[in-house]
Amino acid sequence: MVLSKVTIDIPKNKTYKDLIEEYGDELGVLQREVRRLNLSVNVVFEGWYDSFVGEIINQQLLPLDSRGFDFYFTEAPTSEERKKPFMTRFSQKIAPKGKLAVFDRSWYMRGVIEQLMDDSNPLMCGQNPALDDNALSLFTETTKKEIIHTERFDRLIDNINGFEKTLTDDNNILIKIYFGISKEDRVKRKNSWKKTIPYIIDKRSMEKVYREDIYVIKELLDRTHTEHSPWSLILVKQDLDLAILQTMKTIIDQLKPAIEHAQLKLEKEYRNGENIPDIEKIDELTGEKEIVHYEDRYADHLAKVNLTKAYGKKDYKKKLKKYQNRLAFLHYVLYSQKKAMVLVFEGWDAAGKGGSIKRIVQSMNPRFYRVIPIASPTDVDLRHHYLWRFLDGIPTCGKTSIYDRSWYGRVMVERVEHFCTEEEWHRAYDEINLFEKMLTDSGMIVIKFWLHVSKEKQLERFNARAANPLKQWKLTDEDWRNREKWDQYYNAVNQMIEETSTKNAPWVIVESDDKYYARVKILKTIIKHIEKEIPGQEKVNKKNLNE
Amino acid sequence: MVLSKVTIDIPKNKTYKDLIEEYGDELGVLQREVRRLNLSVNVVFEGWYDSFVGEIINQQLLPLDSRGFDFYFTEAPTSEERKKPFMTRFSQKIAPKGKLAVFDRSWYMRGVIEQLMDDSNPLMCGQNPALDDNALSLFTETTKKEIIHTERFDRLIDNINGFEKTLTDDNNILIKIYFGISKEDRVKRKNSWKKTIPYIIDKRSMEKVYREDIYVIKELLDRTHTEHSPWSLILVKQDLDLAILQTMKTIIDQLKPAIEHAQLKLEKEYRNGENIPDIEKIDELTGEKEIVHYEDRYADHLAKVNLTKAYGKKDYKKKLKKYQNRLAFLHYVLYSQKKAMVLVFEGWDAAGKGGSIKRIVQSMNPRFYRVIPIASPTDVDLRHHYLWRFLDGIPTCGKTSIYDRSWYGRVMVERVEHFCTEEEWHRAYDEINLFEKMLTDSGMIVIKFWLHVSKEKQLERFNARAANPLKQWKLTDEDWRNREKWDQYYNAVNQMIEETSTKNAPWVIVESDDKYYARVKILKTIIKHIEKEIPGQEKVNKKNLNE
Repeated sequence: MVLSKVTIDIPKNKTYKDLIEEYGDELGVLQREVRRLNLSVNVVFEGWYDSFVGEIINQQLLPLDSRGFDFYFTEAPTSEERKKPFMTRFSQKIAPKGKLAVFDRSWYMRGVIEQLMDDSNPLMCGQNPALDDNALSLFTETTKKEIIHTERFDRLIDNINGFEKTLTDDNNILIKIYFGISKEDRVKRKNSWKKTIPYIIDKRSMEKVYREDIYVIKELLDRTHTEHSPWSLILVKQDLDLAILQTMKTIIDQLKPAIEHAQLKLEKEYRNGENIPDIEKIDELTGEKEIVHYEDRYADHLAKVNLTKAYGKKDYKKKLKKYQNRLAFLHYVLYSQKKAMVLVFEGWDAAGKGGSIKRIVQSMNPRFYRVIPIASPTDVDLRHHYLWRFLDGIPTCGKTSIYDRSWYGRVMVERVEHFCTEEEWHRAYDEINLFEKMLTDSGMIVIKFWLHVSKEKQLERFNARAANPLKQWKLTDEDWRNREKWDQYYNAVNQMIEETSTKNAPWVIVESDDKYYARVKILKTIIKHIEKEIPGQEKVNKKNLNE
Repeated sequence: MVLSKVTIDIPKNKTYKDLIEEYGDELGVLQREVRRLNLSVNVVFEGWYDSFVGEIINQQLLPLDSRGFDFYFTEAPTSEERKKPFMTRFSQKIAPKGKLAVFDRSWYMRGVIEQLMDDSNPLMCGQNPALDDNALSLFTETTKKEIIHTERFDRLIDNINGFEKTLTDDNNILIKIYFGISKEDRVKRKNSWKKTIPYIIDKRSMEKVYREDIYVIKELLDRTHTEHSPWSLILVKQDLDLAILQTMKTIIDQLKPAIEHAQLKLEKEYRNGENIPDIEKIDELTGEKEIVHYEDRYADHLAKVNLTKAYGKKDYKKKLKKYQNRLAFLHYVLYSQKKAMVLVFEGWDAAGKGGSIKRIVQSMNPRFYRVIPIASPTDVDLRHHYLWRFLDGIPTCGKTSIYDRSWYGRVMVERVEHFCTEEEWHRAYDEINLFEKMLTDSGMIVIKFWLHVSKEKQLERFNARAANPLKQWKLTDEDWRNREKWDQYYNAVNQMIEETSTKNAPWVIVESDDKYYARVKILKTIIKHIEKEIPGQEKVNKKNLNE
């Protein structure tokens, strides 16, 4: 796609001021539409240095009702933000339904450019202090041109395009505007600044820059100028009112059809299960036609699980102690190497998620792990994309987050209970894979455990809980209701495992009819992954264990 | 009050392990009580260096259901946190109703001690890099002893005691435990560490410290050992299991009566308005007795307001431009001096809050201000102390937050509509004064505007809104309902102004029947406050304005 410049015709009988007022009223009306229709609107402003971005944005905000928007001036990341995947701080700010979010600088300059500066440290773990604005000066003309051909640049572009598609797929509206400015106009501005504002804010932009970042930025704009989320380019000259008008017009022109489109899309959506089409399949050997139901298209991963695996108590106790000690040690290694880890626990009710998590953290230092139990979403959660509420739990580097249930609720309970549309949970597989890729791309270990038990074993455990006064609270009516839908969940789990077991974030099915076996297998799996990710540790561990 | 050491009797027929299991079950039961009764429980762990805090805490957490607690290991503040009043990051983490929050280090070590390190910069604006752990080494024996006699230390103690009283008054349970350890035991630990954990985490504590911080910490504990929130002191020896037991016992022993007490208190609470007692007053001149109704005890501040003040349009436009330019300039000065500002707007419906805010921000750089519109609390908000939801909007240094409605809702709409109990809104005046003092203590400018209009003028504006298609949305049924309760609000406002107009955070009543007059007065007031707070600016401004 090719970016084209925004132009505007000014009717002869009107002044700029007249039009700014008219457009302001129109923006106000659209904002109320956004609220009424519960849409999330995100406006991204990026621009060349000294292109008046701040001044122009202020004029867009003034006509708006302040209850209806959030404004974010994106500065360099805080020390905490530096320790998380680079998109996290932006994803967390995406407008909730019914509101606008206005970004003055975004994941483009503050995300990509910062990432590129930091070649030595893909984890962004604060080890490298060069991540602030001054880092721009690290660039030489040559590396700038070269960087757009690197695999790293590709990955960042993929991350951004995937992220933006996730947003627009979920009916979030995204408007991206880039302000250009010529060298002459920039110099004129600089001179006028000297007179009126002795306290110049962005000293850097005045003195240091004007280097040719243009190669990278042009490529960045080109490759993120997508059908679902195109760029608008506005060339700013000395007449600021004209630029303000062009910007207002651009927002209005994009918001109007987007609102209509979102409205249509909302009407068209059908509920899960009402309309899953069967497909025709031709048997490879016989050539016969066969009708395949949607849920039969996936392999029966769970059927292959050998649930008879078990350990005796004495054996278990010995193994438990051994592997807990080893994990405790490796956990310190992870911390010292600033390597983050995400462990996801999913499984049937009463499969032993809680008990397994307890055995993992028992010997860990609580300062470096966090157990994140996932309950029903709050009303605030429900105003965001379903992945939003998991962002806060993403560990900073060196730390471990253990999710007790997770984003996989989308393709299990939300699918089975029709809390989302079929289109939504279908789409979720790709969204989840992208989400987890962002985690592993930033250097994290991600392991997902499915704790599998037989239907009989579950019943046995339910009954045992009901009989134990100290454990009764664990058993709820919901558990019994879920059990009635065993087959639907069974299908959902098979599909989930097939669609989301990736090389970077694999599913591990844990045979859990015997709790002892399950716990030991989980501990061993985690240890194995850490050893693989931190070469050289295997030996150190062995030595340590033998002592 | 005097701190006493926790001791424990171990029955002869039981081992430590037996008791740890028993207490664990008991903690689990209490946790479920906490959830059932919707209580907020906060456990604060502090301790001398190398006193096994981490290990002991982990054992307290293991018996708990992870859905019911949050664990916070308080590290040095992030770059963002450094820019806010020191209590903010702790207040934001106080347990929501129904949950426990466990603090490994808290406002004591991480708040007070850090504050004291940073003598040069009361704003904590990140200008002083000495705020990290190494800062401890800045202390000399002498200054340590002396610091407890400073006004600054007093202020920190007042802040903490006030904060904790606010919590416990609101039925939040607070348990504070301090771990002591002898020099000999610390050395033994150090040696055992060398063998088992080659990756020592807290290197600082091993090598640098053991200085005599004891003066300050002892004084800190003594003066925060209050009736509403006492300390428990546990002396840790080499037998960690004993310390774990003592800790569990301490928590159980405090949680049990606290739960009972909270339950009783919840039952006793009566609703606002049902039971406000009249008081007897004796006239100073005549000696006659008089019965005074609660709401007549406060002066009628609003009656004194001269609502005829007004400006002509031409005069207004000139003044507006002049003061807007001046404010825009001073806003850059605030930023460059890292001075934060909080502006609170309250007033009758249709008094012109939105329009006034617009005139303030019109010439400001959006990167340095934020308008925070306050709507009804979400369900997440409602699980916290009512001040909690305003914390996120507190500006970082150099920035301005403009609250469109605020925490004063507690003593206005929540009082009048009976959304809180009488006891709660009564208490709120002190709580608000303390809250605002924390803001100004950390160097912020705080100004509160009450926009006052006559009842007639309000009706006039309601009717005008109803007639204008572009403004109809501003007028809701609620506005009409509020208008019916004019007299009740009138009394509430008078009391609010009397109780919360402080020297550090004054109320400014704005005559708003004429919008022009109101806007100019507000601009002038803000300018005056900034000039006062940043000496020397008055001249610079004048010069700047004359140019």
